[in-house]
Amino acid sequence: MTLAPKSRTKPALASIMERMQALAAADLAEVERLLAERAASPVSVIPDLSAYIISAGGKRLRPLITLISANAVGRANAATHALAAAVEFIHTATLLHDDVVDESDLRRGKPAAKAVWGNKASILVGDFLFARAFNLLVETNSLTILNRLATASTVIAEGEVRQLAAMQTRDLPTEEYLAIVEAKTGALFEAAAETGALSAGAPAHADALASYGKNLGLAFQIIDDVLDYGGTTSVIGKSVGDDFREGKVTLPVIIARRRGSDEDRAFWDRALNPATPEDSDLAHAVHLIRATGAAEATVQEAEAYAALAKGALRGLPASPYREALEDLADFCVSRAY
Amino acid sequence: MTLAPKSRTKPALASIMERMQALAAADLAEVERLLAERAASPVSVIPDLSAYIISAGGKRLRPLITLISANAVGRANAATHALAAAVEFIHTATLLHDDVVDESDLRRGKPAAKAVWGNKASILVGDFLFARAFNLLVETNSLTILNRLATASTVIAEGEVRQLAAMQTRDLPTEEYLAIVEAKTGALFEAAAETGALSAGAPAHADALASYGKNLGLAFQIIDDVLDYGGTTSVIGKSVGDDFREGKVTLPVIIARRRGSDEDRAFWDRALNPATPEDSDLAHAVHLIRATGAAEATVQEAEAYAALAKGALRGLPASPYREALEDLADFCVSRAY
Repeated sequence: MTLAPKSRTKPALASIMERMQALAAADLAEVERLLAERAASPVSVIPDLSAYIISAGGKRLRPLITLISANAVGRANAATHALAAAVEFIHTATLLHDDVVDESDLRRGKPAAKAVWGNKASILVGDFLFARAFNLLVETNSLTILNRLATASTVIAEGEVRQLAAMQTRDLPTEEYLAIVEAKTGALFEAAAETGALSAGAPAHADALASYGKNLGLAFQIIDDVLDYGGTTSVIGKSVGDDFREGKVTLPVIIARRRGSDEDRAFWDRALNPATPEDSDLAHAVHLIRATGAAEATVQEAEAYAALAKGALRGLPASPYREALEDLADFCVSRAY
Repeated sequence: MTLAPKSRTKPALASIMERMQALAAADLAEVERLLAERAASPVSVIPDLSAYIISAGGKRLRPLITLISANAVGRANAATHALAAAVEFIHTATLLHDDVVDESDLRRGKPAAKAVWGNKASILVGDFLFARAFNLLVETNSLTILNRLATASTVIAEGEVRQLAAMQTRDLPTEEYLAIVEAKTGALFEAAAETGALSAGAPAHADALASYGKNLGLAFQIIDDVLDYGGTTSVIGKSVGDDFREGKVTLPVIIARRRGSDEDRAFWDRALNPATPEDSDLAHAVHLIRATGAAEATVQEAEAYAALAKGALRGLPASPYREALEDLADFCVSRAY
């Protein structure tokens, strides 16, 4: 009983990202230069592995948020560029460690770095990039910005540890799921937008952009989680079933389980236990998530956060940059249908 | 043909550490308070795992270096305390990740954290403590100090990656071994001493203390590496054979291999390959390291670095703190005999 996704306007995805990248083209070029320059090391595994994951299909979503937030309330400058590069390095470090923790062999449809260089190199290069991020943050010349990103990094780690613990929980409360998502994904989006404003010398807009970033991050991750079951209509981009195979309890599962029969709940309890999976389980899981309307309800939850994100921008001066941030919120949700 | 270790004066180990701890007692108490306070998190695994590794038998060597360096050239203050706690958190984070990378199940004679909480939690709590270290460093109010520790952290990761690569190398040059040790251990000792001086407002002594720290770190790690084969006379503290079982090529092996027969070299090549070990190999390895005088030669190498460390202190004002730093160099080497 899914709502008809056709009732929504589907933004042209590629064109939104392209417009954002065009809007921040000069700034983004400088960030790209920094990313390549600061991944350098005489120990060749480090730039090799870094280049593999940094240049491989990343949308530069988080640095774009920083750059466009800065330009929406002031002007991106050298500090903003260093900050945006640091944000991407922190994100990359967490990806490298997540791949080891999640035991996933694919990342954006390519073999994960750990599948090529091994777990050990992935852990250590993650550490290297994380430390380099703080070298870059020193260049913002702002202890406030630096502290904000250090705190965001602790919150991300907390979110990941909570997620580990949640793997053992059969009926994860929605609130705990949202708290995990806010920590593991929302925290970096929030800090990226907030410190973008700070780097542009516009602290008056920092809270609004923090709220924008946090809600955007929630929308983004919730959509990611429904995409792992193929979204509402078809499989887009990301490989399907990773979360399911890892036994990760995400919002589509929480809703499908709640709305399902006793038999359905027995299915989820067995199938999400990595010790007792069966080949046909993923297809049945996708079926239940569609049939109970859980996919659609999950997208609606993400849409609510995207609306909060856009609402947080109300006090910002009208500009193509503010529009781009609004479009970005639409983009995040539009990936699912 | 080993030299007689009795020709050296063996400092009373416990008493040196106790004297250092007494000398910095008030400062160290404040650092301990910070370590407990800043490992706090609503996610209970984080303080539990942190307390396990932080309170478990650590000598607080690196924070002591920071505190005593500061007092040797000025006065340890709130910035020094935050810095010393940050140094210990960075060290702890690298231990947690090292245990995963080295696949070692013991740390200081106890089960490693990863053997209790698993690899995943060890990786993530390491990330948490590393990020918290940078929150603490913000409290030094010094971007210079912060940058120094961020750079040291990149160098540590580089050293660890080089060490991974060196595992595949049959005849590792001594220079490459020393470069790895300088990076993975020397860099944090160096930064700990140097920034201790900076935190006390004595930049004129920072270079001397950096040199002290680097050479002390080299001496310390080289001794650690010979202790992994039981030192020169007997087994002290640390469990024996970890490096050997991991196929890690350290200075005692480099020297024993170089001084050995063709047959000995064939032994090392087979025994250090983790695919082809035999039960009696460790005993034979320890025998070769003693018989070729490699253990003694390794200690002499460490003594040379300890002497360089002490020499670097020449320009510092005479004080109980300078004496303590000198004693510390003796202590590091004395662990081996």
